[in-house]
Amino acid sequence: MWCLHRKLIMKEFKVVFQPTGRTVYVLSGTSVMEAAGRAGIILQSPCGGKGTCGKCKVRLINCDPELNEGTGGLSEELVCDGYRLGCQTHITKDMVIEIPKESLFEATEKILTGDSGEVAVLHPVVRKTFFDMGEPTGHTAGSDASRLQSVIGEVEIPFAILQKLPLFLRANSWQGTAVVIGTRLAGLEVADTSGEVYGVAVDLGTTTVVATLFDLTTGTELALASTMNPQVSYGDDVIARILRVRENSDALAELQQVIVKALNSLLQTLSEKAQVPSRQIYEITVAGNSTMQQILCGLDPSALGEVPFMQVFDRALRVSATTLGISANSGAEVFVFPQIGGFVGGDTVAGVLAAAMDRAKQPVLLVDIGTNGEIVLAHDGKLQATSTAAGPAFEGARIVQGMRATAGAIEKIVIEDDVILNVIGDSRPAGLCGTALIDAVAELLTKGVIDETGRILNSEEVPNDISDALRRRLIEMDGQVNFVLVEAKDSSSGEAIYLWQKDVRELQLASGAIRAGVNILLKRAGLEAGDLAAVLLAGAFGNFIRRSNARRIGLLPQIDCDRIRFIGNAASLGAKFALLSADERERTSKIRACTEHVDLSLDSDFQMEFGMAMMFPEN
Amino acid sequence: MWCLHRKLIMKEFKVVFQPTGRTVYVLSGTSVMEAAGRAGIILQSPCGGKGTCGKCKVRLINCDPELNEGTGGLSEELVCDGYRLGCQTHITKDMVIEIPKESLFEATEKILTGDSGEVAVLHPVVRKTFFDMGEPTGHTAGSDASRLQSVIGEVEIPFAILQKLPLFLRANSWQGTAVVIGTRLAGLEVADTSGEVYGVAVDLGTTTVVATLFDLTTGTELALASTMNPQVSYGDDVIARILRVRENSDALAELQQVIVKALNSLLQTLSEKAQVPSRQIYEITVAGNSTMQQILCGLDPSALGEVPFMQVFDRALRVSATTLGISANSGAEVFVFPQIGGFVGGDTVAGVLAAAMDRAKQPVLLVDIGTNGEIVLAHDGKLQATSTAAGPAFEGARIVQGMRATAGAIEKIVIEDDVILNVIGDSRPAGLCGTALIDAVAELLTKGVIDETGRILNSEEVPNDISDALRRRLIEMDGQVNFVLVEAKDSSSGEAIYLWQKDVRELQLASGAIRAGVNILLKRAGLEAGDLAAVLLAGAFGNFIRRSNARRIGLLPQIDCDRIRFIGNAASLGAKFALLSADERERTSKIRACTEHVDLSLDSDFQMEFGMAMMFPEN
Repeated sequence: MWCLHRKLIMKEFKVVFQPTGRTVYVLSGTSVMEAAGRAGIILQSPCGGKGTCGKCKVRLINCDPELNEGTGGLSEELVCDGYRLGCQTHITKDMVIEIPKESLFEATEKILTGDSGEVAVLHPVVRKTFFDMGEPTGHTAGSDASRLQSVIGEVEIPFAILQKLPLFLRANSWQGTAVVIGTRLAGLEVADTSGEVYGVAVDLGTTTVVATLFDLTTGTELALASTMNPQVSYGDDVIARILRVRENSDALAELQQVIVKALNSLLQTLSEKAQVPSRQIYEITVAGNSTMQQILCGLDPSALGEVPFMQVFDRALRVSATTLGISANSGAEVFVFPQIGGFVGGDTVAGVLAAAMDRAKQPVLLVDIGTNGEIVLAHDGKLQATSTAAGPAFEGARIVQGMRATAGAIEKIVIEDDVILNVIGDSRPAGLCGTALIDAVAELLTKGVIDETGRILNSEEVPNDISDALRRRLIEMDGQVNFVLVEAKDSSSGEAIYLWQKDVRELQLASGAIRAGVNILLKRAGLEAGDLAAVLLAGAFGNFIRRSNARRIGLLPQIDCDRIRFIGNAASLGAKFALLSADERERTSKIRACTEHVDLSLDSDFQMEFGMAMMFPEN
Repeated sequence: MWCLHRKLIMKEFKVVFQPTGRTVYVLSGTSVMEAAGRAGIILQSPCGGKGTCGKCKVRLINCDPELNEGTGGLSEELVCDGYRLGCQTHITKDMVIEIPKESLFEATEKILTGDSGEVAVLHPVVRKTFFDMGEPTGHTAGSDASRLQSVIGEVEIPFAILQKLPLFLRANSWQGTAVVIGTRLAGLEVADTSGEVYGVAVDLGTTTVVATLFDLTTGTELALASTMNPQVSYGDDVIARILRVRENSDALAELQQVIVKALNSLLQTLSEKAQVPSRQIYEITVAGNSTMQQILCGLDPSALGEVPFMQVFDRALRVSATTLGISANSGAEVFVFPQIGGFVGGDTVAGVLAAAMDRAKQPVLLVDIGTNGEIVLAHDGKLQATSTAAGPAFEGARIVQGMRATAGAIEKIVIEDDVILNVIGDSRPAGLCGTALIDAVAELLTKGVIDETGRILNSEEVPNDISDALRRRLIEMDGQVNFVLVEAKDSSSGEAIYLWQKDVRELQLASGAIRAGVNILLKRAGLEAGDLAAVLLAGAFGNFIRRSNARRIGLLPQIDCDRIRFIGNAASLGAKFALLSADERERTSKIRACTEHVDLSLDSDFQMEFGMAMMFPEN
């Protein structure tokens, strides 16, 4: 990682997490919890990082025995052994940190032990049963089908399997392994293969697709693989892809083919990584937004491209993998998450499931920030969900010198007497990504360099206490002021990188759209922001955001940061839950049925709220 | 029809039944009920033809006002108008007879009015609903799928239809007709086609296949077509076809193809006859024996060819017509009747359904006489069913000069001072079919020409009162006596037709097998023949049998003939019931579940019973 300004550099340390060996570089003072999050390791934090629940404990290898932060509530023995609370301990040097299994906020852990303490049972929808029904005699009355049902339970036998049944039974001495998905017989295997049942949970994102392979007999995660959604070449966001489908009659089939191909490639990677034959993959759960889910299934998303933004389906789909062209067992099934309405799709249902919002006792808000912001409010046993078009600003698009959070992207900005920034990868800065945009605006707001209306002040208008270094960065062009983040000599292209006035306006639009959605939901529920017990941030972007800065620009409600929690990739978590537990899956139907879809375009208050939300809050 | 002996000829008359115009030629003295049966028209006869229930009334056109038989219980006005009871009125001249709808024992009538008086509702499993869901607005929340479900009811939408749904709705102004089979959406049609729903009931016999087309909106029978089962070229009976499958790995596919082709040809005939497009046929119900049903479905019947005679399935199958290769609507479904066990298949379940045996208050026996005799006993709310290998004697096979009941077959024999016989079609006699075999043996038994052991006596052993004409017919060859039925000069081939001693033995085996099965069921239920309230004769053969002769040879129990009833083609009737009424179809599952399959090969008494039943009863 490459840091500016060298003379103001904050020391950056290498942190290695065990047992996975994942490594990140973070600025001094970063909490262990945040550093872990950067490494894709989400620690449990039911108390919201207050240091009171003790769930996020980690073990510092070669821990300085004098280090007395993060010991709250831990026994003297644990402290001696290097254990500290992840949320209260900060990185001050290169460190090796061991993450105990019980501190992980992970699908398997959650399902097997429950995040609120209750023990849920690993109970996948797919199950295998070895049977040995014995030779038939006149006294064991019944057909081949009914004898099989008497030993494996009442299952529906699909016609294609029924046709093979007589020969299978007789060729295998009346023994075999039955694979059952829900109440349907999905396959018959020779001999006892009941120990081999695998499934894959897929987070089908607009930009990224993440697939995780699980051993369904133990609930163990065996391998993880991710890839760029190849549909990005047809358009960065869902609207672009929907337009593509509306304009070109072949586009739907093409978009479906490329995503199926990508999924097959992920499945092959998983299969190789874990040494699991793909024919032993019997189920795939998929959570994605409405557009992604529909395109995967070859369901025309055109109606999502115009008012009133209609989905083709809302109940969960169970589709044969073969029908979709997905390479797994020929009897495998794809479970596609139910959808709420409009752009509130399966990923949101998965997020609600993962966060157990349907069981929330107090008001809880879920915000998934992306090109479309999805917002869910749980209150009083009811759920309201909405989607708001934030635009691609958070992903670095429509920002003059914006870029995705990849190598060369400025991802963090701190402004003190001068600008300090972090760049992803070992390269000079090339542009700024969404988090840096928020940082820059938040810091400049706090400094008084940007006013509440979003205007960047010129060097004469700024407060007196602004350093000369910062003043020099304020450059007037065409009657507007832009702020130099990186001087030409330091950038990778040799040209200066600015925070443009126009960028601030884009951020105001994006942030305002999310915030207006939040405000409408709160208003409909008769709540104030302060009534929220928690604000859960989901999605890839949400996990890298700096809470205080997001709050500073008004993107998040003005509540204590300790009530703002990262819940990781909630869609992926939800997909895992649905894969590992029939009960959790059953809950997705309930969530769909009890969630009201709020269409902001029909809310007469939305334009007013949106206009107000574009104004930055006072400090 | 050709009758012998010319000098003893009984006059034969032409009878035309209206409104169908079906015509038959029958001997003088035949009852109208029997003549109607010969024309395929089954009259209601809950009283068993005693003339007491009045259900079989028919109207004689140009009736002789002096004709005073068959008037019992009818009003003077009806009698004046030509009405008479079909069971009590006899054919004495050429006649035209009108059959009132209410006298028919037919599927539609039975379902719509009930044969025991109760009114059942026409309620097919297939239904069409025209919908007009209107333009979606933000206020009519929901996906395309959920909006459709809200107007047509909670149905499962198959994936293939879901894929077409968005375009269909938008291209057709949110209107159309939904076709639902059970709880599954089977198709969407443009505009309002709710008046056009058709279905076909198929009686899938080993020898003959009968298909009937119904208008499912009214329950009306529109057309009937039948054909020889083309599988006969692979073997006359089910055992021969099973052996063929066991010996040749391609035979199952071939047998399936030829029957599917035959069904498609029948469907085309029905479609043309009734001017109904085959794409409007949405359901086909099939009742056949275990072997026929399994072969139609491509389910290997090999296990029916060896002990313990196992079926592949027993619960009803619902298979896509397309999967079976049947040409109807692409969303059409084939309902294949549940099976009881071994050779007791779907035709027996259909028969039990048609005869309402599952609701019998008193002991009732159903006998379907064929190559396999299926026997069902209802007693005390329970059903027991068995199958017994009667062999093909009743179909004229294994009889030296036997033949099927087609043109040239002797079908009826009366023996008085000499032999009187009826031949099917306008030809000289070529051989004898099953009914004639029974007649010949019964009549000769009564005359004392055949003794209880089944031996044909020679001219010296027969009773003194036997006419010379008959004595001359007793010809000794190789130490056995055979009986000349037709002299060489009168036969079509120019060779005499005999009742051979060997034929009597074949009949003893066939009849004994059925009777032994009946006796075993009675014994298990602790009943005597005399306890039976009714013996129902089903199947093509059963309807042509002469009850008194069947009883004379011991094929049927020794009970009053008026308790022996013909119920027509019960399998076909059952298939119709299942087509026209979801409730009746539901009953097939109950019948399957509550019927005990009795495997005679496991019954230690069977050999003893069989041996005893081969002896003819005393007169």
